[in-house]
Amino acid sequence: MRNIKLVLEYDGTDFVGWQIQASGRSVQQDVTNGLRQILGEDVSLIGAGRTDSGVHARGQVANFHTVSLLDPPSILNGLNGVLPQDIRVHSCEDVNEDFHARYSARERVYRYYLSLERMAIGRFYSWSVPYDLDIDLMNDAAGTIVGEHSFESFCKNGSEVDHYRCIIYRSGWVRSGTMLTYEVGGNRFLRAMVRLLVGTMVDVGRGFMPAAAFQEVLAAKGRQRVGMAAPPQGLILEEVKY
Amino acid sequence: MRNIKLVLEYDGTDFVGWQIQASGRSVQQDVTNGLRQILGEDVSLIGAGRTDSGVHARGQVANFHTVSLLDPPSILNGLNGVLPQDIRVHSCEDVNEDFHARYSARERVYRYYLSLERMAIGRFYSWSVPYDLDIDLMNDAAGTIVGEHSFESFCKNGSEVDHYRCIIYRSGWVRSGTMLTYEVGGNRFLRAMVRLLVGTMVDVGRGFMPAAAFQEVLAAKGRQRVGMAAPPQGLILEEVKY
Repeated sequence: MRNIKLVLEYDGTDFVGWQIQASGRSVQQDVTNGLRQILGEDVSLIGAGRTDSGVHARGQVANFHTVSLLDPPSILNGLNGVLPQDIRVHSCEDVNEDFHARYSARERVYRYYLSLERMAIGRFYSWSVPYDLDIDLMNDAAGTIVGEHSFESFCKNGSEVDHYRCIIYRSGWVRSGTMLTYEVGGNRFLRAMVRLLVGTMVDVGRGFMPAAAFQEVLAAKGRQRVGMAAPPQGLILEEVKY
Repeated sequence: MRNIKLVLEYDGTDFVGWQIQASGRSVQQDVTNGLRQILGEDVSLIGAGRTDSGVHARGQVANFHTVSLLDPPSILNGLNGVLPQDIRVHSCEDVNEDFHARYSARERVYRYYLSLERMAIGRFYSWSVPYDLDIDLMNDAAGTIVGEHSFESFCKNGSEVDHYRCIIYRSGWVRSGTMLTYEVGGNRFLRAMVRLLVGTMVDVGRGFMPAAAFQEVLAAKGRQRVGMAAPPQGLILEEVKY
């Protein structure tokens, strides 16, 4: 059996998320359907990260096994021909049989885009926060999560996970004009974790929560309430590293 | 009568354009409706530029006369409260009675966004041209239009204009990663002019037309066929200067 790796971009606006659900349009289902059209085969598509409803991806990685002999460029072009315009395949290649999009991943990189203005253009790809935000305080908070921590405080209820430990390699805000971008890279992320981190850091940036309190929330391991989750449309899974 | 100036941003995706039409959703109609709700008055809204269907604006300027005594911040906040999310008002101010959004404008600045990759995210705000483009040749062509010229060759049939002369102040392409941006500033623009210029310059960039031929097309004043108009979604009216 061949093992094939895809790098996918998608606009999450009209999806219930990556994962196939009982109802609603999922990326996993659309790509699986596309592969059935191209390969004449039902494959099991494994994604690196289960993005939530409305969350986008520029570098989602997926893999599947197939007996097809179709060469990678033909699969790539065939898929881009049959897939809807809100999913694009950027690359397609044969990989080792032990490659697993989810378990082989070393780092996932997310960016969250936040606009300080009210926006019409691009409102589906950023969160509009038309207030004064202190980016230095937000970076103080962002820096505290680097390293290995238990993120129970920044995890949506109902997540089925064995443990809450994640290793964060980088976490910081950059300002460019009226756009603030948060970039975070880590070995794994819990459900809604990035959005809960962003929502809480915005509370810090607005002066509603001291940066020190942010650290306390993290240390409380779920016994202390965090801020609101930032809305999904600002979040993009940028890259998965292996 | 007060004369009030608005700066507007809109996502043109779901509009038939700026101007009120027999059917379909127009920006002019939506803003006029919003003002009726806020002021209790039917105003005549004058726009600086009549953007086509699907074309966006980040800095469209409009003005209207009113007998209302409502202060500008209340009009701005009121409008943003009642307008749909794809139109945002960035500023609102009282101006001299002789200010006319269309006739007082000195310069209109448009940008056209072109991606060298197939895109899912942002596909409504750029044109995807996944081919090799020679940006130096495109800049050679872009430079030839600076100054005063007759743009009959770059004007959609059926435009009702007295003359085709436009003064172009700047015209050039910039590359940033896989995104090419064309910026053009001029005293006036004819119907679909920027899109016809971009479509023809892309032909130059792909090697389908020599840069010298671009100049001939311009000189032919409509007697020579131009390339296709670039699609509307890549075009944004960025700013109007007075």
